[in-house]
Amino acid sequence: MKKNYLDIIDPIHDFIRVYDHELSIIDNSIFQRLRRIRQLSGAHLTYPAAQHTRFEHSLGVMHIASQAGHALNEKGFLKSDDIEILRLAGLLHDIGHGPFSHLFEEIIQEKKISHEDFGKEIILKSEIGDILTKNGFDKKLITKIAFGDSKFQYLNEIVSGALSADMMDYLLRDGYFTGAEHAKIDHKRITQSLDVHQKKLALERSALYSFESMMHSRYQMFKAVYFHKTVRAAEVMLLEALRSSDDEFGFSTFNLDEFIQLTDEYILSSLVSSKSSKLKRARKFAQDYQNRKLLKCVFESILTSRKNLKKIKTTDLRDAISKKSKVAENEIFVDSSVTPSIPLAPSKNESKSIILITSDNGKSSAKEMPISEIPVVSAISGFMNILRIYTYQKNRKKVEIAAKSIIGELE
Amino acid sequence: MKKNYLDIIDPIHDFIRVYDHELSIIDNSIFQRLRRIRQLSGAHLTYPAAQHTRFEHSLGVMHIASQAGHALNEKGFLKSDDIEILRLAGLLHDIGHGPFSHLFEEIIQEKKISHEDFGKEIILKSEIGDILTKNGFDKKLITKIAFGDSKFQYLNEIVSGALSADMMDYLLRDGYFTGAEHAKIDHKRITQSLDVHQKKLALERSALYSFESMMHSRYQMFKAVYFHKTVRAAEVMLLEALRSSDDEFGFSTFNLDEFIQLTDEYILSSLVSSKSSKLKRARKFAQDYQNRKLLKCVFESILTSRKNLKKIKTTDLRDAISKKSKVAENEIFVDSSVTPSIPLAPSKNESKSIILITSDNGKSSAKEMPISEIPVVSAISGFMNILRIYTYQKNRKKVEIAAKSIIGELE
Amino acid sequence: MKKNYLDIIDPIHDFIRVYDHELSIIDNSIFQRLRRIRQLSGAHLTYPAAQHTRFEHSLGVMHIASQAGHALNEKGFLKSDDIEILRLAGLLHDIGHGPFSHLFEEIIQEKKISHEDFGKEIILKSEIGDILTKNGFDKKLITKIAFGDSKFQYLNEIVSGALSADMMDYLLRDGYFTGAEHAKIDHKRITQSLDVHQKKLALERSALYSFESMMHSRYQMFKAVYFHKTVRAAEVMLLEALRSSDDEFGFSTFNLDEFIQLTDEYILSSLVSSKSSKLKRARKFAQDYQNRKLLKCVFESILTSRKNLKKIKTTDLRDAISKKSKVAENEIFVDSSVTPSIPLAPSKNESKSIILITSDNGKSSAKEMPISEIPVVSAISGFMNILRIYTYQKNRKKVEIAAKSIIGELE
Amino acid sequence: MKKNYLDIIDPIHDFIRVYDHELSIIDNSIFQRLRRIRQLSGAHLTYPAAQHTRFEHSLGVMHIASQAGHALNEKGFLKSDDIEILRLAGLLHDIGHGPFSHLFEEIIQEKKISHEDFGKEIILKSEIGDILTKNGFDKKLITKIAFGDSKFQYLNEIVSGALSADMMDYLLRDGYFTGAEHAKIDHKRITQSLDVHQKKLALERSALYSFESMMHSRYQMFKAVYFHKTVRAAEVMLLEALRSSDDEFGFSTFNLDEFIQLTDEYILSSLVSSKSSKLKRARKFAQDYQNRKLLKCVFESILTSRKNLKKIKTTDLRDAISKKSKVAENEIFVDSSVTPSIPLAPSKNESKSIILITSDNGKSSAKEMPISEIPVVSAISGFMNILRIYTYQKNRKKVEIAAKSIIGELE
Repeated sequence: MKKNYLDIIDPIHDFIRVYDHELSIIDNSIFQRLRRIRQLSGAHLTYPAAQHTRFEHSLGVMHIASQAGHALNEKGFLKSDDIEILRLAGLLHDIGHGPFSHLFEEIIQEKKISHEDFGKEIILKSEIGDILTKNGFDKKLITKIAFGDSKFQYLNEIVSGALSADMMDYLLRDGYFTGAEHAKIDHKRITQSLDVHQKKLALERSALYSFESMMHSRYQMFKAVYFHKTVRAAEVMLLEALRSSDDEFGFSTFNLDEFIQLTDEYILSSLVSSKSSKLKRARKFAQDYQNRKLLKCVFESILTSRKNLKKIKTTDLRDAISKKSKVAENEIFVDSSVTPSIPLAPSKNESKSIILITSDNGKSSAKEMPISEIPVVSAISGFMNILRIYTYQKNRKKVEIAAKSIIGELE
Repeated sequence: MKKNYLDIIDPIHDFIRVYDHELSIIDNSIFQRLRRIRQLSGAHLTYPAAQHTRFEHSLGVMHIASQAGHALNEKGFLKSDDIEILRLAGLLHDIGHGPFSHLFEEIIQEKKISHEDFGKEIILKSEIGDILTKNGFDKKLITKIAFGDSKFQYLNEIVSGALSADMMDYLLRDGYFTGAEHAKIDHKRITQSLDVHQKKLALERSALYSFESMMHSRYQMFKAVYFHKTVRAAEVMLLEALRSSDDEFGFSTFNLDEFIQLTDEYILSSLVSSKSSKLKRARKFAQDYQNRKLLKCVFESILTSRKNLKKIKTTDLRDAISKKSKVAENEIFVDSSVTPSIPLAPSKNESKSIILITSDNGKSSAKEMPISEIPVVSAISGFMNILRIYTYQKNRKKVEIAAKSIIGELE
Repeated sequence: MKKNYLDIIDPIHDFIRVYDHELSIIDNSIFQRLRRIRQLSGAHLTYPAAQHTRFEHSLGVMHIASQAGHALNEKGFLKSDDIEILRLAGLLHDIGHGPFSHLFEEIIQEKKISHEDFGKEIILKSEIGDILTKNGFDKKLITKIAFGDSKFQYLNEIVSGALSADMMDYLLRDGYFTGAEHAKIDHKRITQSLDVHQKKLALERSALYSFESMMHSRYQMFKAVYFHKTVRAAEVMLLEALRSSDDEFGFSTFNLDEFIQLTDEYILSSLVSSKSSKLKRARKFAQDYQNRKLLKCVFESILTSRKNLKKIKTTDLRDAISKKSKVAENEIFVDSSVTPSIPLAPSKNESKSIILITSDNGKSSAKEMPISEIPVVSAISGFMNILRIYTYQKNRKKVEIAAKSIIGELE
Repeated sequence: MKKNYLDIIDPIHDFIRVYDHELSIIDNSIFQRLRRIRQLSGAHLTYPAAQHTRFEHSLGVMHIASQAGHALNEKGFLKSDDIEILRLAGLLHDIGHGPFSHLFEEIIQEKKISHEDFGKEIILKSEIGDILTKNGFDKKLITKIAFGDSKFQYLNEIVSGALSADMMDYLLRDGYFTGAEHAKIDHKRITQSLDVHQKKLALERSALYSFESMMHSRYQMFKAVYFHKTVRAAEVMLLEALRSSDDEFGFSTFNLDEFIQLTDEYILSSLVSSKSSKLKRARKFAQDYQNRKLLKCVFESILTSRKNLKKIKTTDLRDAISKKSKVAENEIFVDSSVTPSIPLAPSKNESKSIILITSDNGKSSAKEMPISEIPVVSAISGFMNILRIYTYQKNRKKVEIAAKSIIGELE
């Protein structure tokens, strides 16, 4: 029997086919909420067009996961039913995200909570879970695939990691909406070239070039967008605003009804209009953020080989600079931006290699290639660890001098 | 002397060069507010990626107006200083827009106010005007060019109308962000081919093909996006929410401090969280909108040649359908979507022709070509006038029968 | 078992997967010859980048036919094996094309021969046929699908006609390589929305908009490229060169060994370097063509409603103009460019309607929609029939006066 | 006075404005000849769509050089008249190219002749030169700018080198037509950011990211296209065919009338149809090339750090492998592909640095940045020096074993 579907227009994938049971999840207010959480928190203050949200991204991940599923199904690794489950895991992989996406994550991580924990809670205990059960799906299985805990590692790797639907969609989408990088990821080629070796996701050797190219795009997105000096300035301010209002909003105590309210603009307008004296600091950051009065970067350094500097705690560094510059500690902000040179595996471990499959006359063989042998990837690795010191315009000179002096001594 | 500038990355124009005095306008909170007013009000409920705002659009209009200015400058029609003024007029042409852009406009129009009135107010009397004056610009002149009232008609036409920077930017941008139409407007060709004839904007004959193609793209955008059945459903709901909360917010009494607060998400979250019984109706619409519970369209007709139907008032039609169907008047919504087959001139009159310039051996001659002679444009004209009846899911059948019967009789 | 394949990079489709048996056809010199036949004969003299050939196009048609096949297979209309046959029919549908593609066709048509006749000959009697047989395919069946003669009309319609892989690939490809139209055909949406009704190809109602848009792109390609005044000037010259050298080359007597030699550049350089006095006229056209000394258009008229003019034979018109202008007959060229407003069906009849499928709650119903009800398509129909008179630069004035006078009388 | 111009449609630059005096050069048969010389020699056997020619590329270089000229003119470095000269130098920079572009170059280089020598000859002594003179241009000056010998180094650098119009156009164009790399070069940003420091071309610091990105695209084009194993196989064959027919065609003795005939297809079809026994070897290569029977690569190594291997002559290596494998010398082909990690300066020296200009509050300062500090560029440098051994299919095994053994010993 034909299944009913709707084609949703999307600039990245032309159109995304959505089946009826998926639509009932998407149309639920828990999912609709993702429309109000920007994919890139504060990047639109630097890249004005980057207004896209977790909503479109989630549809996109479902779409690419589905293509990957079909490719593996044709190669005999996946049953047709599994594709449906993979689609749902892709659709729901970000359902636990809070306001300002990864910034919210940084706040709750301090209490050892992750967006995946919230995601599991939502899938297992909310209406979303009820819809899944009603449509004959095992909601527990879906959390296992969505959040990196299935028996078949390759299913998790289709959702997150260096060959994942998540990364392919966000690179394509963030590039398209920022305008920083024009879609250079041959995701169709990569998904068509996926393979499986010993329950792990692998890639046909002939698509290695596309993989290297994608890793380079990732590097450029980090440099140009995710770790951009001004983007991080905005995000440091949002982080401070969130941190100073955690007691008020109770970010880490999950309560579904309240959680649904917590969207980017809700947080900002609540803070801006709040009269509470306890929120004074958070309010100031929110106002300055909205009016684009951003912190200034007075020091920047790539940390790669600076071992002494890496050992020091950011709070200690801040205090030392404060002391030397005679600028109050809460007017100095130490920001350390780090990412591995290729994305983390679903296990959250750093990937050290990629499995390549070569076919010759019908026979295929697998080989594990160390990441370090891919020239562009290894070149990149050193440039993904940046330390920056921010402060207010008025303190600029003093903090700059202090920062240079202190960090100079450490090196 | 070289002027200082910043290049802002934009997916439509690659990058937009912004000079220091322009940046001080853009960074003002009155202008930053445009970041929180979506370009296409409720279209993102149908085209999820359409999250773009008046902010990016305003930068884009400045950019294209600048290109048009340079082209005319090279042809001897415009002084170099005039380009600066044209840029500012383009940048500020939408500064008076309220929440949900044209929907807000519909509300205030009922009181004979337009966004241009608010725009003038802001340019002449706010900090924006002060910045202009401080930088040596005549703020009155800028309102005249931005809002269709200059001595040189062609300057106004560069900002709004059938060959305008406004239209070129919104078609390109709305197409890019919805994903509905992939950028088919050869705006560079058109701006390079602009000319002037008797103080009016004209086009080189060789670019007529590009113009026709752009008019077709406009038609497709109306059909696919602006007048899309579901997009209009969302907008009818927003209109009702705005109309029912006008007393509360005082939309048509302009007060700058309050006006700056009025953004899309502010209106929605204020309504959703309001306890006021006077806002009950508005609140319901806002909630349903946020949870994507949309009105259903039960009748749709293209009105072109249906003269009887065009004469009838929408409120009378609503009442008649209510009476016949026994469904309460306030659960029936008559929506009439109309646009001229080519955009209105800055005078708000419908354009009937386009001036074409032919050059032969250095001699150039002008000719006025009636719009009706451009085949695609004349074909389109009939399809831009749509009447629709919406209601709630539960009343669907009853209202559909009544609407068909009543409208059938009228024809 | 996994089949061996190669991914060929293609700018239109990213990559085209080619299976081993297909590769052995492609690598055969009969097929390689298509690399030396330009897709658009003489259009590159006007659109310099239009150097693409029938070779790439043939791969592209195979690719889209394959996608269409998969979509119908998922809907239960086509067996998996049939997709292989459909791919081969797409790959080989242009194998019978001679030098300068459709211009060669015009020459042999005068002797009631078509490129399809040559195509059948090649598939049935050459090494290409042997490869097909060796790989277990029925070569007769493939000719039937490639050339419009199968029992299942929809299979033919996937190869040629208004919803065909052929048209989708050539519109996309010709637009991409000329630069005239930037890829506005949502071919993936259309192929995914194909359906079958009473053995005929049908389209889901929801993709009607994409179809209309594609028809508009086709119209623009005809206006901007295929029927462009200067493109036709070059093609009129090539036609004359071919016509005057038919005896020499024997175009219509098919001989495989000779046929393989007949490529665009071979014809041109043979003519240019020929010393034969019988080829004097052909040589002159070839030289002028190579040096871009093109005929001039002195008269142009859209014929739609000009019935008297349509009745007259082009040779009679030429003779009359010659007599009146006192310019030799062989220096006057009457060119009549005609195409139906939507592409011909595989039967070579004009399509008058399109079958639309609507699905509601699992039930689907078919409806035949007259082409005339699609506004853009009906608007176009009048503009696809153009009469032009060309001559040499030196005769320009005289022929222009005579042509206007004679055609004026006829109207 | 307005100058007459024509807009030529081009997929890379939308349209290229060509002024009347430029058109008279372009329409001359010496320039038209470039339409028959492919930009990428034999790459279309691997990337079927890569049929583009030196003709379109030359127009594109003129276009970008013009944009660069305008940017520098606005910054006060260049007079308006100089832009015209720069355009002509860009247009004519490849006029001396022979059949198969750089392959022809390899042949004549063995006699210390370059395509620049032929280019000067053509500009100074042919009709091209007459047209220049007639239009009031100094043809000697144009050769100096086109071929790297002007007093103002930055003028030469606009035509060729690491920031040149030549490189930007060929990367964009080769990427577009092969389909290998989708246009990732922000050439507008780069040209707008050009500056001059001590008569040398410099770049604004803010565009460094665009430069790095362009260098990465260049690297990817070398890996994916220019040095692709199969592309080189085809080119090794063409080289052999040219080398074996040099006596026949007299490639290095410049004679304008003959030179105009020497196009890709002319050489191939002359060889294929030749009966001369002296051309037997050349004929065989031409036939195999046309039928895509390519040499096989049996050994491949990146040479970067292999000093011993770099010292050995390719002919000695070939002879040694022949001796060991007992395969005839003329059936073994040693191909060494080398390119510097950034393009050569107009002086043909390797560039070691790039001059960056930083502006702060109206003051600008220059800084020379070593190429080695740009991470991606330095990573690349090691991978641009590849040694390969090719042979016929039948000798594959024997030559492979011999090559590995001999090269193993050398290391």
